[in-house]
Formats: sequence, C-alpha cells, structure tokens
Amino acid sequence: MREKQRAIAIVVVMLAAIFSGCASNPDVQEVQPDPLPLWYDGKAKEEIIGFVNEISDFFSDSLVPPEKRIAVFDNDGTLWPEKPLYFPLEFIFHLTEEMAEEHPEWKTEDPFKSVLEGDYTALTAEDFPALIEATHGGMTQTEFYRRARKWLSKAEHPRFEEKYKKLAYTPMLQMFDYLRKNGFRIFICSGGTVEFIRAYSEVAYGIPPENVIGTTIDTRFEITEKGPVLYRTGVIVPPLNDREGKPVNIQRHIGLRPIIAFGNSDGDIEMLQYTAEGRGPGLAVLIHHDDVEREYDYDKGTEKALELAEENGWTVVSMKDDFAEVFPEKEEEEKVEPGNQ
Amino acid sequence: MREKQRAIAIVVVMLAAIFSGCASNPDVQEVQPDPLPLWYDGKAKEEIIGFVNEISDFFSDSLVPPEKRIAVFDNDGTLWPEKPLYFPLEFIFHLTEEMAEEHPEWKTEDPFKSVLEGDYTALTAEDFPALIEATHGGMTQTEFYRRARKWLSKAEHPRFEEKYKKLAYTPMLQMFDYLRKNGFRIFICSGGTVEFIRAYSEVAYGIPPENVIGTTIDTRFEITEKGPVLYRTGVIVPPLNDREGKPVNIQRHIGLRPIIAFGNSDGDIEMLQYTAEGRGPGLAVLIHHDDVEREYDYDKGTEKALELAEENGWTVVSMKDDFAEVFPEKEEEEKVEPGNQ
Repeated sequence: MREKQRAIAIVVVMLAAIFSGCASNPDVQEVQPDPLPLWYDGKAKEEIIGFVNEISDFFSDSLVPPEKRIAVFDNDGTLWPEKPLYFPLEFIFHLTEEMAEEHPEWKTEDPFKSVLEGDYTALTAEDFPALIEATHGGMTQTEFYRRARKWLSKAEHPRFEEKYKKLAYTPMLQMFDYLRKNGFRIFICSGGTVEFIRAYSEVAYGIPPENVIGTTIDTRFEITEKGPVLYRTGVIVPPLNDREGKPVNIQRHIGLRPIIAFGNSDGDIEMLQYTAEGRGPGLAVLIHHDDVEREYDYDKGTEKALELAEENGWTVVSMKDDFAEVFPEKEEEEKVEPGNQ
Repeated sequence: MREKQRAIAIVVVMLAAIFSGCASNPDVQEVQPDPLPLWYDGKAKEEIIGFVNEISDFFSDSLVPPEKRIAVFDNDGTLWPEKPLYFPLEFIFHLTEEMAEEHPEWKTEDPFKSVLEGDYTALTAEDFPALIEATHGGMTQTEFYRRARKWLSKAEHPRFEEKYKKLAYTPMLQMFDYLRKNGFRIFICSGGTVEFIRAYSEVAYGIPPENVIGTTIDTRFEITEKGPVLYRTGVIVPPLNDREGKPVNIQRHIGLRPIIAFGNSDGDIEMLQYTAEGRGPGLAVLIHHDDVEREYDYDKGTEKALELAEENGWTVVSMKDDFAEVFPEKEEEEKVEPGNQ
C-alpha cells in the first residue's frame, strides 16, 4: 500500500508540475496585485486602471475588442522631458553647428547666426522650417539615421547629466507594458520630426519605427550608381504633427480612433478631444509637470489643456504625486582613466 | 513490485503529457515538413524559403534581426485580382452612381457622365482625382468606412461570382502566415486609396489598418455639435502610392527598408528595387498572371517589371505553375426559398 501511496504522491507532483507549467505560459494572464507599482495609488492610477478594466470586461457595455485597442502618446514632455529645450530641437542645432564649416555664410545669416551664437531666444516658429531644410535637405535617409544615433549616443542632458535616450520616464514605460498586456497597440504621436524619434524609439521605449507618428520630412527616391536611395528633401509634409494635425496624421497612419491618449501640452488638445470626446469609450490623460525636485514645474503652454481637463473630466497625472519614480536608477559609469583611452 | 511498475508507467504517461503540452505551446516552433503546401514545389517556392532561411540563420552573414524583418505587399493583382477592373475603382464608380441623385448635373458632365453610362474606357488618369474629390469630399471618415463595408458585404465579382473580400489568393494568405512565423511584420503597400483597403484588410487578410499603406485622401479635423469629427476633403495627399511614391510612403509609414517585397506590375518596380537592389539582403517577388483557367493571363502593364526581374534575378511566381490553389473553396450558399424571405 505504501507503493500505491507513493504512486499517488508522484501523480500529485506531476500534476502540480503541469499546472505550474501552464501558469508560466506567457499567453495565460497572471493575477497581478498591482499592475503599476511605479505609480502611487491615487485618483489618476485608479481612473486609468478603471478604464482599462471597463473596456476589457467581456460583460461590459463599454467592451472594446482588442483589434480596436489603440493608445497614442505624445513624446516630448509626456515620455521624456522637454526642458530646457525640446531634445529634437537640440539635435537640429547640433546639425547646424556640425554643418557650419561647409557653410561659412551661416556666420552672418539668420536664423543660422543665432543658432551658432547659441541665442535660441531670437528664433521664431517660422525659422524652424528653414533650419530643417538646410540641415536635413539632400542627406540620405541612412545618413540621417546614422547622425541621429551618433548624437543620441553621446548627448547628455545638462541638468540630469544623463544621455537623453535614458531619460524616458519609467512610470510611462511601465504604462506601455501594462497596456500591451491588455491588448493595446501603442503609438507615439509627436510634434518632433518622425525619423529622429525612430532613431531611438526601439531602444528607449521598445516601440518599433512604424509605430511612431511625427512631423514628416519628405524624401525623394532615386536610383544612383550605388543603388536605390532615399534623399531627404528637407521639406515638411503638411500638416505639422501638432494641434489639429495630430488627429489628421493619426487617421493617415493608423486609420482608427485611439481609445487612450496621453499628452502634456496645448499641442495635444485635439488628440485628447478626438480620443475622449467622441462616441464610444475614450480616456484622455494629461501629464502635469509639477515636480520641481525631480523634474520641472511649469504650466506654460499647458494652460488651456489644464482648463479643458477640468471641464471634461480628463485624467490629470501629477508627476509629483502620481509618479513613484521619474527616471531609471543611474548606472554607475565605467571609469576610464584619462590617459588610457 | 507491480505497484512500482504501475507508478513508473504513470510517471511515463505524465511526462508524455508534459512534453505534448509543451509542443502545443504556440511559442515553440514546430518542425514543418512543408511550410507552404498551397505552393507547388519549384524555383519560386525554393527561392522564397531559401531567402527566409538565410536571413533567419543565426550563423549566416545575411542574418537580419527580427526587428528589421519587414515585408511589403502590393494589393491589387498581388493579393487579389485586378480584372476586369481594379476593385477600388469599382467602389468609386459605385459611389458615383449612389450619389448621382443628389447631383443631377452629373448626367451631362464628364467624367461623371461616362461613369454613369458605364463607359469606363472614356476615362483618363486625370479624371480620377476629380471623381475621388466629388465622391469622398465632405464625407466623415466614419461614414466612408460604413459605405465601403456595406459595398464590400454585397458586391460580387462578375466572373467568379463571389464577394470581393473572399477573393484573396489563398497561397498569399499562407505566405503571410509563413512570414509571420519567421518574425516578419507585414504591410500592404497599394496604389488604391488606403481607407478602402483598411475597411476589409483585417477580415480578408488578417492585416490591421495601421499596416496598410496606400494613396491617402486628406482629412480635416473639426469640433462639431456632435463632437470631434474627421471630414474627408477628397484631396489626395501627394505622392500617389504608385511607382516612386511607394518607397517614399514606405519611409513615411514604416521608416525601415523592407527586405521582402511582392508586386505584380510596373507600378511596383521602385518598391521592388528599393527592397532588393540596395545594400544588404532583399528579396523581390513578382506575381505573374499567366493562369487563364483559374484567373487571368496578361502581361500588359507588367512588361518592364518582367524585364527587370529577368535582368536582376528577381523571383517570378507563375500563378499557373506555382499556386496549388488560387481562391478558397467556395462555400455552399445557403439556399433560400424565393417565397420564404
């Protein structure tokens, strides 16, 4: 009889093994006590999780089938900082400096002169198309990616003393994971130039290039001696991916209305309205920069969006009170002896 | 001892259960004797499988990491027929007829007059922007999808007596599965208007709307009394997604050079060149319509592409000799008694 008992014990162990095997299958959703540990408990976290539960609930009237679960995220100020300057602008200034040698006339010609002198306050919105055309025009697409990656591998944020591509807000990266687990496809929808973001989106955010929508610089296809090449013309394809340009480009690119949108400034208003104010479920989330200690504290450029959030009941995320962490723990730099490089 | 033997037997059975459990895990790739049974064995199939094996082989110099495995497919003539008329054109003609009541002047005004009289041969390439503007302009995006789906749910092919959306070539659908299993992301890149394809791509091809690139009709965002709305302006966003417009729009949309492209006509040449003639591995495949029995037999509009295929060693697929099947088996129509509806 002891043999029989042992046989039963073995079966029990094997069954346990089978079931634990099933549970480790990534297709089977695990029960998670807190899907967003990098977010403090509070109204914002509750509203986001509440919305996701609601649209995923098979018995809810608000059920959205997985095919239609689209979430869009602004980039600068929503996924990483936008101060002291938009990082994509810094890259344009960097290209201007790098190319200035071939263009001695830039020393006396604006807007180049102002950029080379570091007088960015002298620049107006109208100057940027000219700067983009001068710095991006004629470059092959491959060369552009190479230069963007090179800059991103070196350029550091002046205050945080960290590479830009390592400044993604970790609670937002966790939000991506959480939404993906709930069947969402995630897109960036940024006013920045699309290929600059594509140069690092996979590495910094785990988002493939085709899931990035941005302001588009046109290209021209040509068969050269070296084979087929795409040249950047430097000309912006209208509309700029800002304000009402965002819903238009979301339609061009995705073809579906998103049901979740995250933004942080007045430039995101139309995207948030398009997502949350139409028919059917939609969640608009506004990231509010109110954390002077860990990041920045400002309302400028977000006044109208904050008003509309109040009016329409959009979710407002306080970086101070809702983010348990802002940036990843800094890695210890490998120390290189100066004479040893 | 018999008890012990029984215990061992039970363990063996349980182990077998565990291993068969693992094998049915979809993440574990199964050994498949023929990954493309709907393709006859031959040069085309060999070249395609050979290329996929090569770029997936960890020890190959041609290894392409999964992040860069992009495959693009033309639509009309590559994934479904394009005769007797491009199906997207038929839809534009259908809209023209449907809207003619509100536009009595169309009876005497070309190009509308020719369309309403069914005299499609009278139309030139220049007429289409006017037809698109008249039939798409002012319509909301939601209404456009509704009309496209309604038409697609009814319209039948005159020769095959089957709904258009059921005329996807089954060997091509199998190709999608095969490439997906090998880590590819799949995009349609069609000269047709993008939202027409998006109206059925998920149902007919299993391709989500964001993976469709096509000729884009612009939209305009507006806040109306009923909430935020996208109106179709009816104006085409240049370039047309044809010829050199294809690589340009692939860059705008995906941001990566594809490594596999399937096309069937001269309009696909630049996409095939961009994919296969640059640096690094690339496979260009041309579907050749040479099957008068099961589909159509024609070279018109493909002459130059066939020449280039020969010259550059592109893979040519003979629908007659390489497709083991063209369309899915027809479902038996449910017979409804005429007096019983």
